[in-house]
Parts: sequence; C-alpha cells; structure tokens
Amino acid sequence: MILINGEQRDTLEITDRGLHYGDGLFETIEIIQGQPVFLTQHLARLKTGCQVLHIPYPKEALLLDEIHQVSQFVIHGVLKLMLTRGSGGRGYRQPEIIQATRLLALYPFPDYPAHYNSAGINACFCTSRLGLNPMLAGIKHNNRLEQVLARAEWRDEFQEGLMLNLNEHVIEGTMTNLFVVKNGVLYTPKIILSGIKGVLRQLILEFAKTYEIPFKINDLTKEFVLSGDELFVTNSVIGIWPIKSIAGQSYMPGFLTQKISQYLAEYKISEKDISC
Amino acid sequence: MILINGEQRDTLEITDRGLHYGDGLFETIEIIQGQPVFLTQHLARLKTGCQVLHIPYPKEALLLDEIHQVSQFVIHGVLKLMLTRGSGGRGYRQPEIIQATRLLALYPFPDYPAHYNSAGINACFCTSRLGLNPMLAGIKHNNRLEQVLARAEWRDEFQEGLMLNLNEHVIEGTMTNLFVVKNGVLYTPKIILSGIKGVLRQLILEFAKTYEIPFKINDLTKEFVLSGDELFVTNSVIGIWPIKSIAGQSYMPGFLTQKISQYLAEYKISEKDISC
Repeated sequence: MILINGEQRDTLEITDRGLHYGDGLFETIEIIQGQPVFLTQHLARLKTGCQVLHIPYPKEALLLDEIHQVSQFVIHGVLKLMLTRGSGGRGYRQPEIIQATRLLALYPFPDYPAHYNSAGINACFCTSRLGLNPMLAGIKHNNRLEQVLARAEWRDEFQEGLMLNLNEHVIEGTMTNLFVVKNGVLYTPKIILSGIKGVLRQLILEFAKTYEIPFKINDLTKEFVLSGDELFVTNSVIGIWPIKSIAGQSYMPGFLTQKISQYLAEYKISEKDISC
Repeated sequence: MILINGEQRDTLEITDRGLHYGDGLFETIEIIQGQPVFLTQHLARLKTGCQVLHIPYPKEALLLDEIHQVSQFVIHGVLKLMLTRGSGGRGYRQPEIIQATRLLALYPFPDYPAHYNSAGINACFCTSRLGLNPMLAGIKHNNRLEQVLARAEWRDEFQEGLMLNLNEHVIEGTMTNLFVVKNGVLYTPKIILSGIKGVLRQLILEFAKTYEIPFKINDLTKEFVLSGDELFVTNSVIGIWPIKSIAGQSYMPGFLTQKISQYLAEYKISEKDISC
C-alpha cells in the first residue's frame, strides 16, 4: 500500500522536488503487528530534518493517522515515510508556500538471517569516501549518492561496508551506525561533518547513560576501529549486528554487545506494551 | 510535453531511485527554433556523469530522437533532460541490471531581462557552504540540497548568490559558474572538491585558449574575487551575466567580459548554422 498526501497512488508528479534535487527526508520504520517501532524517535528525527531543510513538518495527527492506515494490518514489515518539499518554485528556488509531499510506502521486512544478530556479519571498508558537509550531517535527507556508490563496491560477500570520510575518520556503515567496544568503553563516531544520526545509535547512547556504561563520542581512525575488542553496527530495522570479520581480522560478539542487544530487546517489548 | 522512457506521461513510479536517493543526473538545455543549444557539450557531460555514477548511458540515437520529439516545435524554451538509475535494487544497493529512466520535460524560457546580460546583476555571498566531495564534484547529479538551501537565503533582492566551500574558497553561484578578470587574466575556480563543471565554463575556457586570453584555474578566496576588475557568472541557459554589485562593491562589465560575450554570441550563431 502506498499513500501520497493521503491518497492511494503509486506514481508521483514529475514536478516533485524530491525527484529533481533529492529535496526531502525519509524514515524507515519497522512495523510489528500493526505497530510502528521507535515511532517517537523516528518522528523526532524527521522533525529535526524539517528544521534543517526548512520543510514544514506536517500536522502530527495527520501523519499518525496515515501511518496507522498503512500499517494497521501488517504483521511484520517496513514503512518508508518520505517527506519532500513538494512541487513548485523555479529551479533551486523554493516556492513561497511549501506544500510538502507525504509519501508512505510499505515494504516486506528484509529477510536477513537471524544469525546476523547473534553470530555477526562480515564487513569491509569501502573505498568511496563520505564528503564533509556539517550543514547536512546528522539528518536523514534524500541526497544519498555517497551511500549508493559505496554499496555498489560489493555484492553478497559482505553484509555491510564501513565508510570513512575525507578526513579518514570511520563514520558509519552504508546503512548503519558503528560502535566499537575497547577496554570496557563504548565508542561511536562523531556525526558532525558526515553521516546520519541513527535512531538506534541515539537509543544505545541513552542505554549507556541509564546502565552506566562508559562511552565516548569521538573521531575514530581505521586503526582504532580494528583495535577494538567488539565491533557492532546498528539500525532501527535490523537491530544490532556484531561484526565478526573485517579487513582480515576476526571479532567475537562480546559481553557489551550482548548486554546492549538485551537492553534493546527489553526496550522493544516495553515500548510494545505502552502502545498496546 | 513530458516524455518518460519514450512515453508521454506526467507522473513517475514512486519506486524510482531518482526520488529516493537523488540517484540521477540532469542537463538543462536551451532550445531555439527547435534546436538544442550546446547539445554536444551537454551530452558529453551527461556521459561523464554516467561513468562516475555507473549509470548506463542510453543509446545516443534514442536520446537524440527523444530530444527531437520534445523540442522540434519549440520556438524558445528549456529542455530538462534527466537520467536516473531507474527502479529496483534493495535499499542503497543498485539492481543487477540497471534500467535507467530517461525523463525529458519542456519548460518556458526563463523571463530574465536582457539587461542582466548587458548591464549586469546584483549578487551576494551565500552563508550556506558547499561541502567537500571529490567523488561527486564536477558532474551535474541530482543531490542538490546545498543549492536549494543556498538559494533560500534571498528572494528578489539579488539575481545570484556565490557559494564558498568548507575550505572558504569561492566555487560557483547557486546555478552558475564564476569568472574573475584581474590585470587582464581570466580566473575561474578549481572544481575538484566541490561544484559543477558548467557547459559554458568549459566553452569559455576553450575560447580563452583559441583567442589567447591568459587564464588560470585556481582556488580563489573571497578577497581575491572582490579584488577583481570584472566579475561574471555563466550558465548555458542564461549565457553571461556580469556582476555589477556584490558585498557593497561595484563593478562594470569590462573589456574581457564584453569580448567573451561576443565570442559566445558568434559561437551560438555558428553552431546554429551547422545544425540547420
């Protein structure tokens, strides 16, 4: 099912600025038994993105109603919620009155094997570098050519690729955020010049505060990442994937990775209880 | 008139990767009396963009035929030719077989007054900075949020805004390239870390070679730009716009600006003769 501005359709006007300039934002939300997971966090990030791009955030009741319409009968799936600046304006100039396009589309839940979460994945370092752009870092906008080009570097031999930015700092995976555990401290890269602040990254940093896990948000070099005791990547749909091999080195899903996975599982159950 | 993959339509499947990731390229081509202007140069840049993004360049005969269909009865207009990676793939991962979407749409010629070309325009420096990304610099891809945000900084008080990149080098206008004349030498910014290599920028550099105008492609600071004797911006649709004021300073369209404008006018006439 696809809803565009509340109407069931599967095509969009070619005048939409999302198409012309990637002038929009998106969220990819897991749906379980009709319930969107981490919805509060997804909507909060979308709202932040709207502030950065000066796209009017829709009335939340309307958005919630449309999310409900699309998700209510879904057992397990993924909802892509996109918000573009709509049509109009002249070239890059935006229209005087912005009428954002709301696009909601349902996808089947990706069929990743469960052992990616338990035993871990094989990862690589991408050759493609993330550019530097503090104005756009953090938010989940539709200008995603860097990720598309990085993801084209491998096929099925890896499950994720880590990306460095132009400053040679490891920032994130193509579709995930990165965490490194070293000597009992949890590290995750700074998202200031490049990268997306993932919903799960934020939640894990909150777990770290709640459960008093020492953590640092730093610039991380490739050498530092490889020297970690445990490595894992996260996103709100796949959850936590430990990295079991990268650049010829092997890792085990260790104590902190398992502990945080357990906090996440408990959080998802408690969140479900609240929304029921 | 709009053609999508050869069919007259005005909507596009919402699965198109152009919409989701700005995963595409475009050219904006002036049409005079049914003839596309600078077509060879536009198609050459599109082809370069396809090589960078690994999007298959369509059969040129097909593209030329579609351009002819859309343009043949147009007295004066602008053709937007867009090429996206089409639909398919999973997330950022591209499909095994890429079927690019060809989108051709006609627009009225923008009604800029002729005195912008003769007397010049008022310009400003934008606050928004271009990011650094050598992988994507030069080509005209659809990830254009930087330009959208920069263009939102003013309304009608200026006709163009110059953008600096994160390194504080002046790179280009939001929709134009920049030239500075100083002591008889023509300068234009390096397009290596940021910016688009405009069709007219390339042509003017060729004029400089042909007519033995001394020129340099350099990193230019704001101070250097302001110290110029003549400033002008270019794009293939508007031609050459001298800058008559920027940051409280005034400039006159000088000898070299007028000379190059004349070379351009002659080139357009000769190109028209060839295509007739």
